[in-house]
Amino acid sequence: MTATELYGQIREKGSFLCVGLDTDLDRIPKELLTTQDPIFEFNKAIVDATAPFTVAYKPNLAFYECHGAKGWNSLEKTVNYIRNNYPQQFIIADAKRGDIGNTSQMYAKTFFQLMDFDAVTLSPYMGKDTVEPFLNFDNKWVILLALTSNQSFNDFQLEYNQETKKHLFETVIEKSKQWGTENNTMYVVGATRAEMLIKVREHAPNHFLLIPGVGAQGGSLEEVAKYGFNNQCGLLVNSSRGILYADNGPDFAKASAEAAKELRNLMTQLLKQSNLL
Amino acid sequence: MTATELYGQIREKGSFLCVGLDTDLDRIPKELLTTQDPIFEFNKAIVDATAPFTVAYKPNLAFYECHGAKGWNSLEKTVNYIRNNYPQQFIIADAKRGDIGNTSQMYAKTFFQLMDFDAVTLSPYMGKDTVEPFLNFDNKWVILLALTSNQSFNDFQLEYNQETKKHLFETVIEKSKQWGTENNTMYVVGATRAEMLIKVREHAPNHFLLIPGVGAQGGSLEEVAKYGFNNQCGLLVNSSRGILYADNGPDFAKASAEAAKELRNLMTQLLKQSNLL
Repeated sequence: MTATELYGQIREKGSFLCVGLDTDLDRIPKELLTTQDPIFEFNKAIVDATAPFTVAYKPNLAFYECHGAKGWNSLEKTVNYIRNNYPQQFIIADAKRGDIGNTSQMYAKTFFQLMDFDAVTLSPYMGKDTVEPFLNFDNKWVILLALTSNQSFNDFQLEYNQETKKHLFETVIEKSKQWGTENNTMYVVGATRAEMLIKVREHAPNHFLLIPGVGAQGGSLEEVAKYGFNNQCGLLVNSSRGILYADNGPDFAKASAEAAKELRNLMTQLLKQSNLL
Repeated sequence: MTATELYGQIREKGSFLCVGLDTDLDRIPKELLTTQDPIFEFNKAIVDATAPFTVAYKPNLAFYECHGAKGWNSLEKTVNYIRNNYPQQFIIADAKRGDIGNTSQMYAKTFFQLMDFDAVTLSPYMGKDTVEPFLNFDNKWVILLALTSNQSFNDFQLEYNQETKKHLFETVIEKSKQWGTENNTMYVVGATRAEMLIKVREHAPNHFLLIPGVGAQGGSLEEVAKYGFNNQCGLLVNSSRGILYADNGPDFAKASAEAAKELRNLMTQLLKQSNLL
């Protein structure tokens, strides 16, 4: 999918919402626990309920790996289900991998060939070698950690180089945007750092950004839109827990749909205000 | 396992060798491909042949994940096999994970509870939140990327802060050594950066270091020992391809044992020269 096609989806849906599939057996409705594959059944219900309001899904690998081989099966089934039933949805493997060339190549094959993800999140610490093998796949994306939403983001991401006058996250963007294009590279920028989106947009005016941290982590959607929109929207905003666990009774999927719809409605409004719809 | 216990193993074996289990179906002997689980069968043969000469094994997760659920089964079987048959071996999940608190917690459970790894490699980009959940497990270790062996290591790891007079990898070591102890934290430092071990040892004189890059990547064991040894050895040196694929005929395991033995012999000599044996 190109950036323009993604923007097309955003316009069609009036939404730049990504639903994070952080599916936790301890939090899903008890009724599902007796099914053969509770994680897949939950994801299927959530996807069916929320697909009209979203443009992307983002399974968080940790929540699948912690169940070993069984978890990987649930993940593969989930990706296939979305791909087959909602082919226009953008599917992100939130894997935060980062390794050297031959290993990165293996990870790229895993997420882009074994499974049909559109994008993978990567950690930039090891540099270009980590990213390049993923960029060799047509129509696939890397999403590089830049400025994250967690509390300890400033341990290293704000390290300042007085000579280049750049923080580490700025250097990450500046260097990596030479490796790929606006059609295969995005950046992760936490919603909790909305005001810093100004700085991110100085370096990456045209790139799409993946924004976690709205909802449970306290980021504001209005602020994110204010500082983050570009002329093709340029944002995917993720919500996980707020949508997945809106209710844990038998009507959980309906409650998730309502939560997603509410965010979609606000997103439609923000897109209109900025003449992006 | 404590650092002192690990040093005890090193003294007993006269070896600080770690064998990287980067098991690649394209490179293992063809005879194994007809077995039910070729990856496990290969690993089992390699472990049985090399265990007398090694103190650690390091499966690289990418090589298992690329086979989906089946790969995870091979990985779990490999870890169990080593744990049950060679309980003193230190088992490292080369996963290079790095995520925020609740996700890191999931990864920690995966590697320390679901599987019985002793240590996990982590990428430090997101800061303390990534590392802390792993440190809450007794007798388990994190191994943080500091200065890696790949070509593009200098894209970000050498970013220099003129105010603190530290490169990023130095800041990573300085900050993270406050989070854990010498009994639960190691650092990855590439053998190809042997001369920079001097700088690493200024910041982490007593920590164990995991050193990849000897062999295929061109690092020298003598140089690594010269600059990296501390008074408890303080090094685990990894070799993957040089040992695994020493031969791909029916006698592959014997050839791997020979390759491991040769490294062990050199290690014994280096340990003796430094009065560590």
